[in-house]
Amino acid sequence: MGIFQRFARLPLKSTYIWSLCPQYSTDLTAVDRALIVRSSQLIQHRCVHSRVMGASPGNPGAAPPRLPFSRVTREDLAFFRTLLPGRTITDPDLLKSSNVDWLKTVEGNSEVLLRPKTTEEVSQILRHCNERNLAVCPQGGNTGLVGGSVPVFDEIILSTSLMNQVITFDNISGILTCQAGCVLENLSNYLEERDFIMPLDLGAKGSCHIGGNVSTNAGGLRLLRYGSLRGTVLGLEVVLADGRILNCLATLRKDNTGYDLKQLFIGSEGTLGVITAVSILCPRKPKAVNVAFLGCSSFQQLLETFQCCRGMLGEILSAFEFFDASCMSLLEKHLKLTNPITESPFYIVIETAGSNATHDEEKLHKFLEEVMTSSLVTDGTVATEATKIKALWSLRERVTEALTHEGYTYKYDISLPVEKIYDLVQDMRGHLGDMAKNVVGYGHVGDGNLHLNITSPSKDPALLAAIEPYVYDMGSRLSPSWAALKPCWILRAFSTLTKHCQTIYTNSFLVFMIYMKNKAVFILLQCFCNTVIVLNWTVIDQTLKYLICSVLCKSHALN
Amino acid sequence: MGIFQRFARLPLKSTYIWSLCPQYSTDLTAVDRALIVRSSQLIQHRCVHSRVMGASPGNPGAAPPRLPFSRVTREDLAFFRTLLPGRTITDPDLLKSSNVDWLKTVEGNSEVLLRPKTTEEVSQILRHCNERNLAVCPQGGNTGLVGGSVPVFDEIILSTSLMNQVITFDNISGILTCQAGCVLENLSNYLEERDFIMPLDLGAKGSCHIGGNVSTNAGGLRLLRYGSLRGTVLGLEVVLADGRILNCLATLRKDNTGYDLKQLFIGSEGTLGVITAVSILCPRKPKAVNVAFLGCSSFQQLLETFQCCRGMLGEILSAFEFFDASCMSLLEKHLKLTNPITESPFYIVIETAGSNATHDEEKLHKFLEEVMTSSLVTDGTVATEATKIKALWSLRERVTEALTHEGYTYKYDISLPVEKIYDLVQDMRGHLGDMAKNVVGYGHVGDGNLHLNITSPSKDPALLAAIEPYVYDMGSRLSPSWAALKPCWILRAFSTLTKHCQTIYTNSFLVFMIYMKNKAVFILLQCFCNTVIVLNWTVIDQTLKYLICSVLCKSHALN
Repeated sequence: MGIFQRFARLPLKSTYIWSLCPQYSTDLTAVDRALIVRSSQLIQHRCVHSRVMGASPGNPGAAPPRLPFSRVTREDLAFFRTLLPGRTITDPDLLKSSNVDWLKTVEGNSEVLLRPKTTEEVSQILRHCNERNLAVCPQGGNTGLVGGSVPVFDEIILSTSLMNQVITFDNISGILTCQAGCVLENLSNYLEERDFIMPLDLGAKGSCHIGGNVSTNAGGLRLLRYGSLRGTVLGLEVVLADGRILNCLATLRKDNTGYDLKQLFIGSEGTLGVITAVSILCPRKPKAVNVAFLGCSSFQQLLETFQCCRGMLGEILSAFEFFDASCMSLLEKHLKLTNPITESPFYIVIETAGSNATHDEEKLHKFLEEVMTSSLVTDGTVATEATKIKALWSLRERVTEALTHEGYTYKYDISLPVEKIYDLVQDMRGHLGDMAKNVVGYGHVGDGNLHLNITSPSKDPALLAAIEPYVYDMGSRLSPSWAALKPCWILRAFSTLTKHCQTIYTNSFLVFMIYMKNKAVFILLQCFCNTVIVLNWTVIDQTLKYLICSVLCKSHALN
Repeated sequence: MGIFQRFARLPLKSTYIWSLCPQYSTDLTAVDRALIVRSSQLIQHRCVHSRVMGASPGNPGAAPPRLPFSRVTREDLAFFRTLLPGRTITDPDLLKSSNVDWLKTVEGNSEVLLRPKTTEEVSQILRHCNERNLAVCPQGGNTGLVGGSVPVFDEIILSTSLMNQVITFDNISGILTCQAGCVLENLSNYLEERDFIMPLDLGAKGSCHIGGNVSTNAGGLRLLRYGSLRGTVLGLEVVLADGRILNCLATLRKDNTGYDLKQLFIGSEGTLGVITAVSILCPRKPKAVNVAFLGCSSFQQLLETFQCCRGMLGEILSAFEFFDASCMSLLEKHLKLTNPITESPFYIVIETAGSNATHDEEKLHKFLEEVMTSSLVTDGTVATEATKIKALWSLRERVTEALTHEGYTYKYDISLPVEKIYDLVQDMRGHLGDMAKNVVGYGHVGDGNLHLNITSPSKDPALLAAIEPYVYDMGSRLSPSWAALKPCWILRAFSTLTKHCQTIYTNSFLVFMIYMKNKAVFILLQCFCNTVIVLNWTVIDQTLKYLICSVLCKSHALN
């Protein structure tokens, strides 16, 4: 009897959820439905926003119960200290920064931080933890905003920060192979000296690790031009939960030999294994870079500017970012940054990158002439010199930082058809009224990706109740594909919905998405790892975990 | 007991293969090794080159035995005719062209060709075949060169040719969603009318289907500019072997919600499911296109021309293809095409695509001046007008066709570090001497992808014995990554090595590659399909199949 059949034998009430997502009734079998039902009925969705710092057992709503993983013993520490002399950290002061996320929203209580330097060390750590049933939380630069990089309880933190070596760089093909703990900005600097650039760029580049970028499938500011990591990452080396090393570290531009296993690790946030090395295709460093900072009086005009820009700048357009007037106010108020143009409801950052400065400037000027003449843009400034380019970019890049000074921020990272992305902000602003201190929107127009942020002086359960599930329902109205329950809406949902969620929320879309994930997790759990311990899974989906354990135990008993 | 443990119980001689690939001994467990051993000892590798047309049971070396699938009965035909009235083809004359591949190298004996129009019909066909244990061979445009698109025995041919409708096209985002049977050239024409283009282009565009392109992960002529299908394909709809419909048809530029299941179907050649619909991100139609056709006196100069070209043409470079003088002779001899420039050992086709004709021409002329002055290029011609562009492109695109007139062609599609790709041709030419009629090389310099072709008046077992395993050993000498046994070397190996191979060949790299595939197949088989019938798997790897069946049967019996 197969895995899915086994589920079917469990008691279930399929009408409960099924009535919420009838669209799938023709596509899914009874056993699929059973899995959905189990997921929705029994999984605690623990929401990052309602989780209390330093989750206490006395507050049952605060966090899910700790799973029955082992506790770290003296013998474990002795093992780690022999393996990683001077790199096994147990000093609470030194551990503090690794236990809390960048936003200081969620905090764990890990008592051990391990800092391996090699893949072999990672393998030995995981083999030991697997044998000892010790939970592990892999950590890169700890710059994530959804709590995926910090422990929930006492998981051992496995940091990639000392795995920071470039392994090879081929300046003919532009293929870089490096350890997972290399800081993005360091890689950028390394490459710029060799006349290349990284195909991705993020505001967090000064701290984030390339391994973390890949495991979260970071998009960032250059996606519009160079595409996603699914295309630019050519190979990965990964250590599975039981310590086995999976070497998919191809360094060929084109590798068509069968199933592309590495794709499963891109965006899986450390749940399937720890990425220890990455090979990535890097573009040539552009000879000319220009940045234009523009103001628009409506979102509709901003969209028309985008269309015009794509047509006129074409192949040299490398970024098209926006933020609204509320973001600008926060930048001025908290970070004392200066608005370089006249006040506008919307601001745009456009970057061009090309091989001929004269051509690029000519294209950019023609475009600016067009949008100014047609009044799509109300004011603007252009930078061609590095310092001024950096200053203009920092307006967009530092919005996240400015928001942290507001108190508490409810963050939503959303993909929608580009023409509708700002509707969500306006609608939410009207819906919340005076309840929220600020409702702001910014993001990547080129990718249809909105950062919706709602601020409040402190955590506010009433405000949260007004935001959720309203935000999801609104999304379903705005996006036809969302309304059709396709698992494509909320970015970063993996962490947000599983690792830290505690609101029981039965929106059929979310249930379906979790179902899809569980199904995939299930496949890989059963086959890759064949173990009970799973990386970064400490509090994910206890029900499914229980079922997995049952199936595995059953198999063991039967054979 | 888990799947891999079950393998460990089978009798095996791990020293046999293990001595060939000691590099893996630290990474893999005993059960992994067991799987490798089983694969290498017992699987018949059936090579497309040594397979006889219309494989006869009287010739034991010709083809592997037919697996115990059911035969199509009257009742089955009645079911298909009710489901697909007028689209269930059994006339042998009409079936002929679907039974044989484009090169006329391999031929099957299917007696039924099904032509569904909808996903629901595909689902019903597969559900029926699964229940009846009938083998199925999915078929797109049947333009593949490695025999993956035709049956080996009497598999039912499931053709996507009537699934040729565009579902939606969004002219803001450039996202096209269409059925899998759309012909690539038709999609290109559809998009060009709307000011967009397809992100891929192939010589076979007049016949190949987009579903086939995705399931074989076709690279083609635009990969250099727009990247691989792993980045441009945003969503897929797939029917699994048991008829279940998996809807991953996202139409968002950025979808980060968890594991990217659709990637498993890209390049899996119909083994995991039939792709029924594709959504793909299409670039804007470039306003200006230029093609330059150049001659080089050595491959080293060709490589230097490529480096110079990347620097000077930068973002407008959309293709850099080459072929050698032997290819040109065949084009002239068999297709009566005219060489537009003076004779050279190597020819290059460079395409630029940009948003400003004046800028592009200026860049191109500067580049040409540079390579002519420095004598990297000996002669050349440039086309800006559509008809002349097409004529220049046809020289490169029709090399495959010219080769078919030579008799029999041994084809190898190989990825290597770009600076070494032609060494393989020269080395092979020296090695084979007079045994081969022609040894030619052509391919995509930008992707490091070589098409090595060796012609002979007819099939020649002695010639084949001289080519293989020599070609693999040579590859291992030329590529350090290949030498390190990484599963990244031979494109299209999936079909070549599994579906039609019959040479027993124990090169450790190939064994490892097969092992990797089997492992993945195994994962998905067990979990997605949970059935014994597998698509396009009629003759793949009987041993593994036997083992899978055993495991499944065992599970069924035990539960």
